Amino acid sequence: MTDKTTEMGRALSEQLNPGMEEALEARYGHLVPGMAEGVVDFAYGRQYGREGLALRDRYIATIAALTAAGGQTKPQLKVNIAGGRKAGLSREEIGEVIWQMALYGGFPAAINGLNAALEVFAQEDASA
Amino acid sequence: MTDKTTEMGRALSEQLNPGMEEALEARYGHLVPGMAEGVVDFAYGRQYGREGLALRDRYIATIAALTAAGGQTKPQLKVNIAGGRKAGLSREEIGEVIWQMALYGGFPAAINGLNAALEVFAQEDASA
Amino acid sequence: MTDKTTEMGRALSEQLNPGMEEALEARYGHLVPGMAEGVVDFAYGRQYGREGLALRDRYIATIAALTAAGGQTKPQLKVNIAGGRKAGLSREEIGEVIWQMALYGGFPAAINGLNAALEVFAQEDASA
Amino acid sequence: MTDKTTEMGRALSEQLNPGMEEALEARYGHLVPGMAEGVVDFAYGRQYGREGLALRDRYIATIAALTAAGGQTKPQLKVNIAGGRKAGLSREEIGEVIWQMALYGGFPAAINGLNAALEVFAQEDASA
Amino acid sequence: MTDKTTEMGRALSEQLNPGMEEALEARYGHLVPGMAEGVVDFAYGRQYGREGLALRDRYIATIAALTAAGGQTKPQLKVNIAGGRKAGLSREEIGEVIWQMALYGGFPAAINGLNAALEVFAQEDASA
Amino acid sequence: MTDKTTEMGRALSEQLNPGMEEALEARYGHLVPGMAEGVVDFAYGRQYGREGLALRDRYIATIAALTAAGGQTKPQLKVNIAGGRKAGLSREEIGEVIWQMALYGGFPAAINGLNAALEVFAQEDASA
Repeated sequence: MTDKTTEMGRALSEQLNPGMEEALEARYGHLVPGMAEGVVDFAYGRQYGREGLALRDRYIATIAALTAAGGQTKPQLKVNIAGGRKAGLSREEIGEVIWQMALYGGFPAAINGLNAALEVFAQEDASA
Repeated sequence: MTDKTTEMGRALSEQLNPGMEEALEARYGHLVPGMAEGVVDFAYGRQYGREGLALRDRYIATIAALTAAGGQTKPQLKVNIAGGRKAGLSREEIGEVIWQMALYGGFPAAINGLNAALEVFAQEDASA
Repeated sequence: MTDKTTEMGRALSEQLNPGMEEALEARYGHLVPGMAEGVVDFAYGRQYGREGLALRDRYIATIAALTAAGGQTKPQLKVNIAGGRKAGLSREEIGEVIWQMALYGGFPAAINGLNAALEVFAQEDASA
Repeated sequence: MTDKTTEMGRALSEQLNPGMEEALEARYGHLVPGMAEGVVDFAYGRQYGREGLALRDRYIATIAALTAAGGQTKPQLKVNIAGGRKAGLSREEIGEVIWQMALYGGFPAAINGLNAALEVFAQEDASA
Repeated sequence: MTDKTTEMGRALSEQLNPGMEEALEARYGHLVPGMAEGVVDFAYGRQYGREGLALRDRYIATIAALTAAGGQTKPQLKVNIAGGRKAGLSREEIGEVIWQMALYGGFPAAINGLNAALEVFAQEDASA
Repeated sequence: MTDKTTEMGRALSEQLNPGMEEALEARYGHLVPGMAEGVVDFAYGRQYGREGLALRDRYIATIAALTAAGGQTKPQLKVNIAGGRKAGLSREEIGEVIWQMALYGGFPAAINGLNAALEVFAQEDASA
């Protein structure tokens, strides 16, 4: 039997990042069994899927935090910029969120974040 | 003559944090002359006052980033939680932004962030 | 019906930090409903309760990470030092874990970590 | 009309990093309008251009901070190492600043910083 | 005459990372004279070589801290994962240490850490 | 017999922070034997005592790094601000170093750093 939060998380994860759970399982499952389900249940079922804050707003928060952290998690920042686009954020809004982080994570971190965004937007254009 | 961005920043700063420029000048101006004007011009006139992202959304970004940074800037986190309330964020939305940071800054950072929010909300209740 | 990971997490949480779930619920539940269950399910049921690494070793990892992060999450560092003691770590081992972090988080962070440990050990002595 | 701090910042920016404002505008201006001017005004006009601390000393501070941050902003660290050279720092002094950060950002961060410096110095030699 | 801690550190360093001191000296010695000896004396002679905590446990601490720091020191994380293997940690144990850091450094940091581990394990397999 | 770097470190440590080694030994020596000597040998004998960079400049680097790290190591930041004063930095220079960190560690971190400096300067005035 599957937990309710896992089910909800799986549905949301598939909508935002199709194939992510399988990709995590394939890459990391032999080393850390159950890790993919844990991500789906907690990150999507128990966090992103929560009520009380619009999904679009959740992506603002995530993009801001990963930018301010200095860009050392650039792959995940790019995944979340792409997710934010699906959740309704415009390119302009994403650019603004990132550049505002100059105030909190410093100018180099904010510029690294803009670079991540430009890469995501270029991929969007290429696959349009 | 005052710069346009400084004027805009001053107006926004006064609206969101009345008396902040004077407080910065009084406390730090003898040591770092012009610092208060720099904050007003850059942080408010050139960042928070920008078009392209609602003020409410800017506070989501700030609260997220300061929470994920681990709570070491708790005084500023509290100032921005209070600012976010003025810009239209509900307590529930702020709680959600902060708790989501468990995914990005870790559980201890998110719990520290919730503590900051509870302190701000208690002050709101006390002054209501 | 309760999820299996939640049940397992609850049992482990009660063993290591009696009353923690209730304390989280009482303090944060009105703001972030379900947060306490999420902590129990993910942190204890899906992480600390995992096979593949002894509980004692998990506490080494946690104490190291929170120390290197610079002590800004001192309350949680202290909780985990106390948890590590219950899981079998000696005071000497904890001191060594923390001081080793001078190499990775810097000397100030490591010294802050030692201060946290001394506070926990003093509480142990006081309640002995 | 141009603000005085913007003018001052532009002159200093051109001296230290010729072409930087145009490069920022070309790369990021369509996404975040006015960002390049903001960098010039605040970072150069209101910070690097301040009195009270020699430019050479400002680069010591910047190189130290970016090194201790762990090297995740390596492109900016390299720009500032090159800037520090123009402001009068010797290679030896830069090496010392970076390696001292072993005490504050940890050994891995300091070693990453030395790698950035070696890359800058190799570029100097190549263009000599 | 060589200091006792330097001698001890040299022996341990050679056992865990053969050739490291020479590599550091060759790469950085002209810029920061004596740096390689400082690493050997302090990191190995005065920290890793200490009594009071098993070497295996020291690697748990290091891998945890570098993972939680967000992967910006990936080269050093990989060196320490390889060192931890020599000190007796199984792949499973290393995977568990890293994934547990989802709780303290966030999910992106933990996933970056798993990627570092997979690279080390692939190198082990390739040279087996 | 005492190592040469330890002797040099002890002399410098006594000059800059009289009584520090004894204080470290008294507070932490029972938990982490030899830790105080390690600090004296490495931090003072092998880092601060190095040639190639003036002591005053080393304090600029340290104050910058600890400020940008967000103020979570405030006690150590204050110790190093006081040390920088002894090594010849003016209050104005220290204020400038700290405020410049707004660019690299964010505005909240820089403001926290200024608060630390004001506390040190007030102590100077009180003991004058």
